[in-house]
Amino acid sequence: MRVIGIGPGGPDQLTVEAVAALNEVDVFVVPVKDRGVDDLVAVREEICRRHVTGAHRIVEVPDPPRDRSPADYEATVSAWHEARAVAVETVLAGLGADQVAGLLVWGDPSLYDSHLRIVERILARGVLSFPYDVVPGVSSVQLLAARHRIVLHRVGEPVTITTGRRLLGTVEGGADNLVVMLDGDLTCRRLSGDWEVWWGANLGTAAEVLVHGPLRDVLPRIEELRARAKAERGWVMDTYLLRRCPSG
Amino acid sequence: MRVIGIGPGGPDQLTVEAVAALNEVDVFVVPVKDRGVDDLVAVREEICRRHVTGAHRIVEVPDPPRDRSPADYEATVSAWHEARAVAVETVLAGLGADQVAGLLVWGDPSLYDSHLRIVERILARGVLSFPYDVVPGVSSVQLLAARHRIVLHRVGEPVTITTGRRLLGTVEGGADNLVVMLDGDLTCRRLSGDWEVWWGANLGTAAEVLVHGPLRDVLPRIEELRARAKAERGWVMDTYLLRRCPSG
Ligand SMILES: C[S@@+](CC[C@H](N)C(=O)[O-])C[C@H]1O[C@@H](n2cnc3c(N)ncnc32)[C@H](O)[C@@H]1O
Ligand SMILES: C[S@@+](CC[C@H](N)C(=O)[O-])C[C@H]1O[C@@H](n2cnc3c(N)ncnc32)[C@H](O)[C@@H]1O
Repeated sequence: MRVIGIGPGGPDQLTVEAVAALNEVDVFVVPVKDRGVDDLVAVREEICRRHVTGAHRIVEVPDPPRDRSPADYEATVSAWHEARAVAVETVLAGLGADQVAGLLVWGDPSLYDSHLRIVERILARGVLSFPYDVVPGVSSVQLLAARHRIVLHRVGEPVTITTGRRLLGTVEGGADNLVVMLDGDLTCRRLSGDWEVWWGANLGTAAEVLVHGPLRDVLPRIEELRARAKAERGWVMDTYLLRRCPSG
Repeated sequence: MRVIGIGPGGPDQLTVEAVAALNEVDVFVVPVKDRGVDDLVAVREEICRRHVTGAHRIVEVPDPPRDRSPADYEATVSAWHEARAVAVETVLAGLGADQVAGLLVWGDPSLYDSHLRIVERILARGVLSFPYDVVPGVSSVQLLAARHRIVLHRVGEPVTITTGRRLLGTVEGGADNLVVMLDGDLTCRRLSGDWEVWWGANLGTAAEVLVHGPLRDVLPRIEELRARAKAERGWVMDTYLLRRCPSG
């Protein structure tokens, strides 16, 4: 099995190595979300059209239903991963012994993505056994930085990647240079103090938008652009870098 | 000008978009370090050989000398960036108005890399003016995760990217999931508590080595492999993920 990072937006934002890996895959196993992210499916299809030359098959695996505001976040995510693992395992069990399965991962598999956890669960279940490797991809974090033409940190400083859910806690812990992902709520609205923000939505797509400036000043603009993008397509993917302004 | 991330190791670990960008470049401006990292130069050359089809020129810009253990780290780095900016500016000033310059960046330009700071300095100096964009690349952080086939964080948790120099401070601040770069000293030797480590050196090259396990147990092995890699080539590039073990 090949787990392949396909980049965060455009159909050419995967690596040459990833293209080679795609072409060794016989069957792409694609977990399909119930949410209306048709554009993502469209990018995946465009990638296959553009870069896969040989014969291949795409098998869509419907995602099991998922409670998105659960009381116990970790347990719920874990149960959902197990259900997903069983669904993918069922498809894999139907493949011939010499057939290579491929999982396409948005951005890079190492950040806020469950494909590797699913693969590990399948292997841990012990029903199937197979070798697999991971082909890294550009993540949305890097595309955000590229579009704003910035380094993520000041010279030699650390940078923390976190989620909307964990943002306030991470800031309390003292991080003052943060990339925020998976934030449906623009949690940065609830920060106190002075921050600079570099925000980007739908990066790499035709609907890409960028905003940069003092958080206080540009927040209304971000809220407006975010709401507009969401209204137009039914969804929005956004990521932002926050940096605490030097006090004094 | 195009600032192009070329990936962290192999000659095919750059994106299709980066390959297209390379082919729009007339003159590659390559700052050359005095340290013996010939293999890196070799990878850059192999990338050009493999992926650049048209005519192009490579101009090497010798790096100004740099104090590597300065009393005032930030000021020294800053002075060094200015000297580098002037050196690159001199080359750019010699290009024709219609010539596109290219800067090749190891890994991704957004992490611990000075090319974008140099470009900004050149523009701030006001002698030259030109448009530029950034093509993101896979970073060594992502290649480390891919080789170990891991997600960088536990479900939904933050991850902090830091340097050897800042590691102990970052841990004191409460981070318990860290990627360490630019660590010539294996600073993790000085950590207390129980940690799990995923270490990788010379990732993507023929000399790639990986170690994973409880830090306490595998540290001697890492020290040995690191020393051996360094003895063989005169240098080693390594990166590692540390995760604090749940207590109790
Ligand atoms: C489930 S995570 C997957 C991240 C992915 N593995 C990566 O490497 O970028 C989804 C989050 O990634 C970010 N994201 C992914 N693609 C994006 C894009 N094209 N533009 C902006 N943000 C994006 C958003 O924060 C989104 O909530
Ligand atoms: C000056 S920083 C440049 C980082 C680069 N911009 C990136 O995106 O990976 C150099 C550090 O990156 C890490 N690094 C770069 N390439 C590596 C490789 N092939 N294997 C392991 N570590 C690497 C090491 O920690 C090294 O000290």
